Amino acid sequence: VKTAAILVIGNEILSGKTDDANARFLIGELRELGVALRRISVIPDTLDEIAETARELSARFDHVFTSGGVGPTHDDLTMEGIARAFDRRVVRHPELEGLLRAYYGERLHERNLRMADVPEGAELVRSPSIEHWPVIAVGNVYILPGVPEIFRRKFLAIRDRFREQPFFLRQLFLDAEEGAIAAQLDEIQREFPQVDIGSYPRWDHPGYRVKVTLESKDGDAVGRAAAALTALLPSAILVRSE
Amino acid sequence: VKTAAILVIGNEILSGKTDDANARFLIGELRELGVALRRISVIPDTLDEIAETARELSARFDHVFTSGGVGPTHDDLTMEGIARAFDRRVVRHPELEGLLRAYYGERLHERNLRMADVPEGAELVRSPSIEHWPVIAVGNVYILPGVPEIFRRKFLAIRDRFREQPFFLRQLFLDAEEGAIAAQLDEIQREFPQVDIGSYPRWDHPGYRVKVTLESKDGDAVGRAAAALTALLPSAILVRSE
Repeated sequence: VKTAAILVIGNEILSGKTDDANARFLIGELRELGVALRRISVIPDTLDEIAETARELSARFDHVFTSGGVGPTHDDLTMEGIARAFDRRVVRHPELEGLLRAYYGERLHERNLRMADVPEGAELVRSPSIEHWPVIAVGNVYILPGVPEIFRRKFLAIRDRFREQPFFLRQLFLDAEEGAIAAQLDEIQREFPQVDIGSYPRWDHPGYRVKVTLESKDGDAVGRAAAALTALLPSAILVRSE
Repeated sequence: VKTAAILVIGNEILSGKTDDANARFLIGELRELGVALRRISVIPDTLDEIAETARELSARFDHVFTSGGVGPTHDDLTMEGIARAFDRRVVRHPELEGLLRAYYGERLHERNLRMADVPEGAELVRSPSIEHWPVIAVGNVYILPGVPEIFRRKFLAIRDRFREQPFFLRQLFLDAEEGAIAAQLDEIQREFPQVDIGSYPRWDHPGYRVKVTLESKDGDAVGRAAAALTALLPSAILVRSE
């Protein structure tokens, strides 16, 4: 199973000025792609934390997606942080500089060119729909901007490179306390270690009290685990399954 | 400045089955309390990751709030993870056991008592509004449940113990490219190092193109920094301030 982490860089999220939209979006995308998201970290705009966290996540997961901190102002530290994570320098990329000069024309401020400064050896990931604005990647770290519209457009342009086998999910909705089904869940989890079994109580839903989820890349195992669990539980508590 | 971290424990968030509501809620609460939130980590229901992350966050920040993974089923590993983070055993707490027995009465399943198993030496944080369900804390780690209604009720019951001096915020809305104001922001940030200055472009707002935020616990410094920045910028680009 390929794994991923999302690294959201931004004081504005932590201080509640802006609601995170990018991690939320990416959760659904990665799921649909069959990639197992294993970590979301939200950190401030500080160089040390960006470098330290990016280094750790890059070593630990197959793909890392960063959000935010790219731009021309003093609080845009992601490129320098990622460079430091990989012990690289930040260099001005001639192709990106050309794209910026073409885009801004006479309106160009010298500081806009900071957006051409990337970690040395960075890959420009191209796609027809983002012809003039390639995604910048360093190793397995994909650097995406914080503005949600652009984050989405850039991710969607490169998403197909991350596609894996899909996840299979079954859900049982039960009218029972968790304590009443815990032993049966233990037994099925032991019997089907390749299936992730989750148990989620609801307090505000009139129709059921616990949702049990069974999930794996092995669709056959999911089906067999769901059947085995259903057989173990009193049939009266099963409200429905899907 | 007192700092905080939120540790969300739950496969259901990472796999997109459940939308996070608890971190989102706590962001606003901590802000209002004057506590500087410095990290949000979302991790799976695995013992090693809970222990490792809780240990790291506890050492690094003044307060840590966990969400999720408390309950009677196999995927509820937070108590054991926090215990491991602090090198403690998990023990059955007599007072919590009594509360559970009183609550469930004859409907009690043996497994419900797992919710009385807490790290040795855990503090029970009491409050009149959660008389029968104290918050369990280990050192600076406050353990809260994943069910949003209960998360909120428990946090609100203990929130006043976290209150600090408030943050002061000024915001300038500008009709300018970030590149055009980057040098002025640098200058003001250098002059007022105690003020956090953020610059946020908007792509979908007809009224302005960049929002600049100035923030600090020193309200006077915020006012002076905002005035100094306003004086540096061309007056024509200032759409409004608040």
